[in-house]
Amino acid sequence: MPNGAQALMQTLADAGIEVCFTNPGTSEMHFVAALDDEPRIRAVLTLFEGVATGAADGYARMADAPAATLLHLGAGLGNGLANLHNARKGKVPIVNIVGDHATYHAPLDAQLQSDIETVARNVSPGFVRTSQRTAELCRDAVDAIAAARGLPGQVATLILPADVSWGDGGVPHPPPAEPAPVAADAATITTIAQVLNAGGKAALLLGGRALREPSLLAAARIAAKSGVKLLAEVFPTRLERGAGLPPVERIAYLAELAGVQLAGLEHLILVDAKSPVSFFAYPGKASDLVPAGCTVHTLATPAQDAAASLAALAQALDAEHAPISVQPAQRPGRPRGRLTAEKVCMAVGHLLPEHAILIDEAITSGLMLPRMTAGCPRHDLITLTGGAIGQGLPNAIGAAIACPKRPVLALIGDGTAMYTIQSLWTLAREHLDVTAVIFSNASYSVLNVELERVGAERIGPKARSQLDLSGPRLDFARLAQGMGVHAARADTAEDFVHALEYALAHPGPHLIEALIPESLSGTKRRILPWLLRALPSLPPAVARALKRKLAP
Amino acid sequence: MPNGAQALMQTLADAGIEVCFTNPGTSEMHFVAALDDEPRIRAVLTLFEGVATGAADGYARMADAPAATLLHLGAGLGNGLANLHNARKGKVPIVNIVGDHATYHAPLDAQLQSDIETVARNVSPGFVRTSQRTAELCRDAVDAIAAARGLPGQVATLILPADVSWGDGGVPHPPPAEPAPVAADAATITTIAQVLNAGGKAALLLGGRALREPSLLAAARIAAKSGVKLLAEVFPTRLERGAGLPPVERIAYLAELAGVQLAGLEHLILVDAKSPVSFFAYPGKASDLVPAGCTVHTLATPAQDAAASLAALAQALDAEHAPISVQPAQRPGRPRGRLTAEKVCMAVGHLLPEHAILIDEAITSGLMLPRMTAGCPRHDLITLTGGAIGQGLPNAIGAAIACPKRPVLALIGDGTAMYTIQSLWTLAREHLDVTAVIFSNASYSVLNVELERVGAERIGPKARSQLDLSGPRLDFARLAQGMGVHAARADTAEDFVHALEYALAHPGPHLIEALIPESLSGTKRRILPWLLRALPSLPPAVARALKRKLAP
Repeated sequence: MPNGAQALMQTLADAGIEVCFTNPGTSEMHFVAALDDEPRIRAVLTLFEGVATGAADGYARMADAPAATLLHLGAGLGNGLANLHNARKGKVPIVNIVGDHATYHAPLDAQLQSDIETVARNVSPGFVRTSQRTAELCRDAVDAIAAARGLPGQVATLILPADVSWGDGGVPHPPPAEPAPVAADAATITTIAQVLNAGGKAALLLGGRALREPSLLAAARIAAKSGVKLLAEVFPTRLERGAGLPPVERIAYLAELAGVQLAGLEHLILVDAKSPVSFFAYPGKASDLVPAGCTVHTLATPAQDAAASLAALAQALDAEHAPISVQPAQRPGRPRGRLTAEKVCMAVGHLLPEHAILIDEAITSGLMLPRMTAGCPRHDLITLTGGAIGQGLPNAIGAAIACPKRPVLALIGDGTAMYTIQSLWTLAREHLDVTAVIFSNASYSVLNVELERVGAERIGPKARSQLDLSGPRLDFARLAQGMGVHAARADTAEDFVHALEYALAHPGPHLIEALIPESLSGTKRRILPWLLRALPSLPPAVARALKRKLAP
Repeated sequence: MPNGAQALMQTLADAGIEVCFTNPGTSEMHFVAALDDEPRIRAVLTLFEGVATGAADGYARMADAPAATLLHLGAGLGNGLANLHNARKGKVPIVNIVGDHATYHAPLDAQLQSDIETVARNVSPGFVRTSQRTAELCRDAVDAIAAARGLPGQVATLILPADVSWGDGGVPHPPPAEPAPVAADAATITTIAQVLNAGGKAALLLGGRALREPSLLAAARIAAKSGVKLLAEVFPTRLERGAGLPPVERIAYLAELAGVQLAGLEHLILVDAKSPVSFFAYPGKASDLVPAGCTVHTLATPAQDAAASLAALAQALDAEHAPISVQPAQRPGRPRGRLTAEKVCMAVGHLLPEHAILIDEAITSGLMLPRMTAGCPRHDLITLTGGAIGQGLPNAIGAAIACPKRPVLALIGDGTAMYTIQSLWTLAREHLDVTAVIFSNASYSVLNVELERVGAERIGPKARSQLDLSGPRLDFARLAQGMGVHAARADTAEDFVHALEYALAHPGPHLIEALIPESLSGTKRRILPWLLRALPSLPPAVARALKRKLAP
């Protein structure tokens, strides 16, 4: 008869879980030992739990199935929390397994004892369970798997005490039923069709799984027939885009610019998305981005089938065969001269391979990325769903493991990269075909903007120093080499293009450190028209600050 | 009238808080801006929150006063949780400030919104408060400071919504009263004096602040008079030791060895310590280390004044002038030949400067460190109080800032170092006189031992690979150079001694990567006698495994 860990391993594999991202300790040793009993599960070691959880997130986004994690007690869960948060906000399924002391050891309050459940509730509000008996462990695991891959997807946390794991009498349990998503009901479809037929200014706000091809095509037909605008949530979990697919306009991060995008709307129709709010609050500014007088409707909640709901709406509008407009194929030219953030984005657009997985955690440096890659061959875009930086490099691990035949390109800010820089070691260890581009501007650049936006008026040297990463300047090529990853540095566009061509042509992983000046200066010229449209709606101090930045 | 953040800054400074370890985001920008209004507070930027919290921990251990942290929402708190856990277990005071969304923004469930309080309860069970109004912020802060530096010390978490921070009408608040610790009552002293006078086999188990000089001297007088054995908790928060101080024997990490240390005791007397339990649970073995028939007494709880209680006990025993035995001055010789973990510890003992701060997170590689440094000049030893690895490098930052004139030597395992490797950047940025020694054996070596100890019988290649860091091998010298820290590698004892001499003679920071074979092999010879004593008490499989490792 198997022990708890062995039965659990079989149960996970029977339910289709193929990968476990780990950072184990003593209390997980029986789980680790059981890995060799189950050839269907791949174990991927990480040096830091935030890498494990972010890899599980990236994996599930691309595999459309959860991976498992293996973390060590409350401290390990804490280390993994930020990327579990990003998964939660992206409605990404993860079976989050946290080892714990033996049940009888916990009351003794040993050094590593802490209240794991209280931490887990932050990221797993829908499912936290400490398994109490070996005989029930696999039933608990199946409940966790069912919760994780339900609709919407979620992080389900299963806490696994060491004695439940090592105990005799594990009983493998059959997999849970597949979730059966339901489309919007007929009354909702009828109401929204009437709204669109009435001809007011309206937009469909697509999020979650509504940013995949079937939904995008249905939405484009609806738009072709009704004139409704297509918007995407600001930070998509996974957006299918590129030449041949209908383009959607992402809501801007800057609330001031989002206000411009949403101005004048009379109807906003949510499809697996939430009503838009600003990322942060700013003194004297509204946090709710829905303009006054705009009615918000819900076509499909995240618990419903967005694609089927959109198809039904298209049918109700007699738009099933409407000719859709799609993104034409086009790429920017080859950049030249001194490297800037914009030229990095241009080079990416110039070279992005077909079916690439593009991970954007470039923060301010990625401002031009959507435009530069819009007409590239079809690709998937993964973004920072929960705002907890340090997601991109771990996501790249998971995406590359989910899709071993697709190139992965991760664009990461320098400050951001340092939260989970240990990812590079796992990239090397697993020989993953990932190219990481680090935008090295030696600054928490976004905070220089935010410092002004929040109206902090007198900004002294101590405050400035909190946003400055230039002393000492990080050398990412050395960091990569120290973890076994091939690396290059570039400060000209020519060198960068050369390094990117090399990386895309040779098996990964690779890291390219793009040495660029402070981001906003490099992108001034291109974002000028868009920003200028926004200026009248901005508070005078922000408008002045932006104008200063935008001055040629 | 100051805004909330400005008033808070003044209140912190008035209460004696001199340092804030930060990793801020947008919601903390007013706090950041207020730093320039308060010259008494030094702001130390970190690249990762676990570095900030571990630095605050190390600072408070050496300064005997709390620092503040500045973290960014629930995700930032998560990243900082592991080292806050270590501080909690070490009863170390920290004023843990976590920025949050504006109060009115929170209900909108923006991307970074999460339940911060639930996470904070894991490390701050005694004090978590979300400040609700600018006018009350400083009162809340003073309550947090009072809670943090009470007896025992604790992590007090103050959650600071952005609008409470930026709001007008901050009211600075005077500092809280100093805590007034109370010694054990007369009845307790009398009872314990009777126990010691009765002459049974007894030990004083010293922990927390009872490991500082005044307590150690009193305990040594008691021992001289009564014959009581002096033990220290397994992982001291801060242990004052070296030539001229009374030596105490730390309880071993391995429960099997601790059992040998405690065998035959009839009375165990706790002094600011908890009754000993094994670090982890193991199948078929007791977690409670107190031997059968031994009575546990409490002389002083962590909430009481240990030094005064020990002094009173010494008086009751008429031991105030008993001649104490102290550690004689002695150092190991200069090691030679191929480098091993033991030779690193020998070199440290050979060279440790007076008044050094020694941070031991070397895990298996540090097995010989206590013996090799016992007779060194007086120094402080800081250890891994909560078992959440990744403490040592951040602790070094805080210790060096608390004691700028004292050399800091941090001995860190390679797996361990990677959890908070970002610490190196802050060491360089702040020009701290720290020498970090990394024991590079390319293995989670302790887990190889643990895998056998927990009785995982069949250990296959997938399990072994989860403990193996050799593919690719980390290059810590490059990692250090990538973050601006001077680094050297050594694989001979001669090179290591040379590198350590250089580091101790030149302003830091420095990193020395000690390339060593798997740890236990290097220490076999020296620990053999001790382990052999323990063998009869071990389960046969563990004894066999140990014997295999110990075979010449």
